[in-house]
Amino acid sequence: MTNTKILSPTPFKLKLVMIALLGIGIFIGTIGVAYAQDVTAESVNDTVGNAITVFAAALVFFMQAGFAFLGAGLIRSKNTVNYMTKSFLDFCIASLGFWAFGFALMMGGGAASGIIGLEGFFLVDFDDSGLVSWFFQMVFAGTAATIIAGAVAERTKINAYFAYSFIVGAVVYPIYGHWAWSDDGWLTQIGPGLADYAGSAVVHMIGGFLALAGAIVVGPRKGFREGADLKGHNIPYVVIGTFILFFGWFGFNINSDTLGLNAVNTLLAGAAGATSAIYVVLLRTGKADIEMACNGALAGLVGITAGCAYVDPWGAVVIGLIAGVIMIFGVDFIKNVVKADDPVGAVTVHGICGAWGVLAVGIFAAGHNGVEGLIAGNAEQLIPQIVGLLVAAAWGLGAGFVLFKVIDLSMGLRASEEEEMSGLDEPEHGASAYPEMAG
Amino acid sequence: MTNTKILSPTPFKLKLVMIALLGIGIFIGTIGVAYAQDVTAESVNDTVGNAITVFAAALVFFMQAGFAFLGAGLIRSKNTVNYMTKSFLDFCIASLGFWAFGFALMMGGGAASGIIGLEGFFLVDFDDSGLVSWFFQMVFAGTAATIIAGAVAERTKINAYFAYSFIVGAVVYPIYGHWAWSDDGWLTQIGPGLADYAGSAVVHMIGGFLALAGAIVVGPRKGFREGADLKGHNIPYVVIGTFILFFGWFGFNINSDTLGLNAVNTLLAGAAGATSAIYVVLLRTGKADIEMACNGALAGLVGITAGCAYVDPWGAVVIGLIAGVIMIFGVDFIKNVVKADDPVGAVTVHGICGAWGVLAVGIFAAGHNGVEGLIAGNAEQLIPQIVGLLVAAAWGLGAGFVLFKVIDLSMGLRASEEEEMSGLDEPEHGASAYPEMAG
Amino acid sequence: MTNTKILSPTPFKLKLVMIALLGIGIFIGTIGVAYAQDVTAESVNDTVGNAITVFAAALVFFMQAGFAFLGAGLIRSKNTVNYMTKSFLDFCIASLGFWAFGFALMMGGGAASGIIGLEGFFLVDFDDSGLVSWFFQMVFAGTAATIIAGAVAERTKINAYFAYSFIVGAVVYPIYGHWAWSDDGWLTQIGPGLADYAGSAVVHMIGGFLALAGAIVVGPRKGFREGADLKGHNIPYVVIGTFILFFGWFGFNINSDTLGLNAVNTLLAGAAGATSAIYVVLLRTGKADIEMACNGALAGLVGITAGCAYVDPWGAVVIGLIAGVIMIFGVDFIKNVVKADDPVGAVTVHGICGAWGVLAVGIFAAGHNGVEGLIAGNAEQLIPQIVGLLVAAAWGLGAGFVLFKVIDLSMGLRASEEEEMSGLDEPEHGASAYPEMAG
Repeated sequence: MTNTKILSPTPFKLKLVMIALLGIGIFIGTIGVAYAQDVTAESVNDTVGNAITVFAAALVFFMQAGFAFLGAGLIRSKNTVNYMTKSFLDFCIASLGFWAFGFALMMGGGAASGIIGLEGFFLVDFDDSGLVSWFFQMVFAGTAATIIAGAVAERTKINAYFAYSFIVGAVVYPIYGHWAWSDDGWLTQIGPGLADYAGSAVVHMIGGFLALAGAIVVGPRKGFREGADLKGHNIPYVVIGTFILFFGWFGFNINSDTLGLNAVNTLLAGAAGATSAIYVVLLRTGKADIEMACNGALAGLVGITAGCAYVDPWGAVVIGLIAGVIMIFGVDFIKNVVKADDPVGAVTVHGICGAWGVLAVGIFAAGHNGVEGLIAGNAEQLIPQIVGLLVAAAWGLGAGFVLFKVIDLSMGLRASEEEEMSGLDEPEHGASAYPEMAG
Repeated sequence: MTNTKILSPTPFKLKLVMIALLGIGIFIGTIGVAYAQDVTAESVNDTVGNAITVFAAALVFFMQAGFAFLGAGLIRSKNTVNYMTKSFLDFCIASLGFWAFGFALMMGGGAASGIIGLEGFFLVDFDDSGLVSWFFQMVFAGTAATIIAGAVAERTKINAYFAYSFIVGAVVYPIYGHWAWSDDGWLTQIGPGLADYAGSAVVHMIGGFLALAGAIVVGPRKGFREGADLKGHNIPYVVIGTFILFFGWFGFNINSDTLGLNAVNTLLAGAAGATSAIYVVLLRTGKADIEMACNGALAGLVGITAGCAYVDPWGAVVIGLIAGVIMIFGVDFIKNVVKADDPVGAVTVHGICGAWGVLAVGIFAAGHNGVEGLIAGNAEQLIPQIVGLLVAAAWGLGAGFVLFKVIDLSMGLRASEEEEMSGLDEPEHGASAYPEMAG
Repeated sequence: MTNTKILSPTPFKLKLVMIALLGIGIFIGTIGVAYAQDVTAESVNDTVGNAITVFAAALVFFMQAGFAFLGAGLIRSKNTVNYMTKSFLDFCIASLGFWAFGFALMMGGGAASGIIGLEGFFLVDFDDSGLVSWFFQMVFAGTAATIIAGAVAERTKINAYFAYSFIVGAVVYPIYGHWAWSDDGWLTQIGPGLADYAGSAVVHMIGGFLALAGAIVVGPRKGFREGADLKGHNIPYVVIGTFILFFGWFGFNINSDTLGLNAVNTLLAGAAGATSAIYVVLLRTGKADIEMACNGALAGLVGITAGCAYVDPWGAVVIGLIAGVIMIFGVDFIKNVVKADDPVGAVTVHGICGAWGVLAVGIFAAGHNGVEGLIAGNAEQLIPQIVGLLVAAAWGLGAGFVLFKVIDLSMGLRASEEEEMSGLDEPEHGASAYPEMAG
């Protein structure tokens, strides 16, 4: 008993020591675990995340080849060299613009942030993850830039197009990109914030409405108003272009947090868009129109781009089916109502179906990655979606009109009538796509 | 001494406390390590595994473009639009069938499991890894579906082909897939179980024997029996198609446990198949036949598909060399003995060389990933391999006959003689592959 | 107070126990962390690294399709089958040579190491990471082999070319590869060691100077000396070839330690090369020459291949811009001064621009991945770079002369005049690229 008494103060001190020991143990344990996590969860995760991003970006880069062939197939062979030169160089030139200015305006912080970024010009002092991020953003900017090529094809001067490419990559694309995708962009501050996962608005609507502005400013091709047959020259190019785009889209829509959901939604929406488009035309004309099936697939893909991380697979099927139908009627609308001459359907596929994609998030988002739409009982998401799509259309059209008008007045936008009749390949490039067949 | 005595009971209590403390420390440490592992080994591994699968599946998707161009090159230009429409839409339509029904029948559990699955229709309530798995399975189903297009090319109605595509993706492919690849499929229960790593039987034999059934039911093209020259129209398409297929095969045959072995075996078997095929033809005719070299590469790739994870690199070389030779004689056999008209050689490349691949596992498996064949001293593996290949041939042929017969009787399978003479592009699609060259 | 005194010895023993306890805790924690790291940082890192390498290698494999189409577009249609057969089979045959001998000579250890490796023939007993490494090295060897096809196009016998392919893959390429890339290669022992990250010297200079030797030994095409118009037949092939090559280059130049830097430098140098090349020609001729833009992109990519892991993004832009200009004048130099007939510009793009790339590391390396050049204040790096590029040129040219001379004397290198006039497709392959247009 005395012992107990004598010892009674000891436990107190011992308790302190033991508590301290336990504390040290936990501390060391925590450090250890944190270190293990640092080495692994973090650094391996970084490597994994960066690797996913780099391969995805390479796939998106490859979409350039898809655009080049899709568009070239849908135009006449006498303008094929011209089209492909534009399609290849717009990426190269826009890259230099995005390197010098675009990324800083889009993703940099700075005084006027919310409206425009001002840090990170010329990629100075970026760490490797920053460079990975630039690479990914760059190929998206290149996609937006190249969408326009098809809508102004067969009549636009090459030098004018090069000038356009630089400015779109350096300024026009990044500004809307900042509003929608930078951490403090003003469109992210409206209600729950605009949810445009992979860019139905940022990439496709901007590209599509720039394309509409370009098609209107440069005017229709000779024969368009008279209803001349201006059909393309190579269906296999259309098909390979579509396959390459579809393939690249798995990189475009990727999400390392929900790799499966995004891939499945992408596949299903593209497949559904092709299927609904071909059946609508079959019902109308009795013909299985492969051009419309290809554009239908792209319509479905554009339509799911905003929502690929948010909707359920069944939602992707519905969005894709509807996108395919919208595309069919949209092409008629642009041609017959707007009376704009868009040789490849870029305005419809990217602009109109992009708008559908942005809206569809407000309807079909099922709570994945934290976004809920009407079907999850949340009507609020519709507000930023509608604002976002209206702003994208307005910015694309407005900036496009100004840009193409300025180019038109300064360096001339449209090829001469004579050049248009002979095709642009010979006068602008001194070349022919198929020299052995050239007259 | 008193001290000692006085203290003697203390250490006992202290020991208890210290042991408890140590216990707590170990417990916390274990939790911490487990947590670190959970965050890292497991979740990072999941991310890595899923990322590998998603990129691999994207590569397999791209193989669709390879099939589209390989086949289009081997047929006449007047049926090119028709062929490409089939090649593109079969994937899209089979996807919708596989989404609705196929995956559930193939990979779902349920009452009749072993024979057929019955859970997971319409992809409801899948977690992300489940969706990744669906994506991977889907592109394999699409591959099986598209193999048939070539064998029935130039004479099969487009609507009949669409109907076929849906049923193959929804029912025919998934059933054999369940037998061979689901955890409890009955072919996995025979002896050591059928070893068909990436689907020499599941994908290629099923596709190839469905193709044989289709070619027989629809009958040969006009001129085939008379020995007319029905050669294709574009060798570069054949080459690009082969390159794309070879490229995609690195995704098809991937294995995250033996990334190197599978890639090396794939490369070597494809290279060996092309080499043996071109030299056999050189010896026979003195000409270096690129079409046969391309089909030889594909023969080697089909041949290594079952065994890529099991055989040594030298085994892959041998399997590929033999596959190239089998392909040359197989094409003759199908044409002259079976007298089936297979414009692209799909029955031989996928069906016969697929059978060779399944058999080859029983011979060359060297113990990698736990499978041993004859050369590792194990004759048992041959039994499930032989059963598996016989069942695949029987199922593909049998289901194919029923399916094509039903389609023939209900909606008509074969284009009219007039359509066949003019080519299917104009009557079925209102289009021409190369409009500027059209009549 | 007595208590204190009585207890005073206790803390000492307790301290020991506590220290022991702490020690055990730290020990267990360390083991745990080490284990967690072992499971994660190491094994997951291995999987991640291997996965990155395998996908990158698949992209590099796909570059074969790029070479096949780039070259086929730049030659006449009557030699297209011949060209594509070479382009496809050189990879297949070189693979078998590299499997049997090449990898062992290049990367194996052995008695004569520093000069040549002698271990690892036929890929016997490689672990999976070793196989991943082989796969990556193999596709690089295949790239070097296929570069030559263009320079000797339209006049070289197919059998001679097959023999060449085997020897390049088995012996010629691996030897320089050993000098530059094996751990103890003698070029890595000069000063700070040759820094050729992805092979401006190892792959492109060796390929380019072998090509020069081949072009000289086989002699120019009929009409070349007379200034006949020998232009190619298909611009879209040139464009798709370039896109595929550019796409594959993101795998070629990959680095798992600086994923972002390498990708960004690759993109910027390629874009800059295309842009400078097209503007130089625009200034000279007023035409926007897409062939030169494509070769300019490739020039930029070849130029950044050595330095992609070492230079800053602005350095990549400068290297690419200069490479595009070098390419324009290099093509003139090879044609008018060296008077070698290189139908596709391979000697310039790969050989000369490869040399520029090796040199550029000595100038622009900014310290990334431990390599510093002139701009980082280090002149020393220039020495191994200059030695390395001179040795590559000498080895490529010298080995190439011997190899092509031996083939010429033993089996004959050049097609007959009659074959050349008719095109090689019919006499050597019994085929035509576009059968419906033949005859």
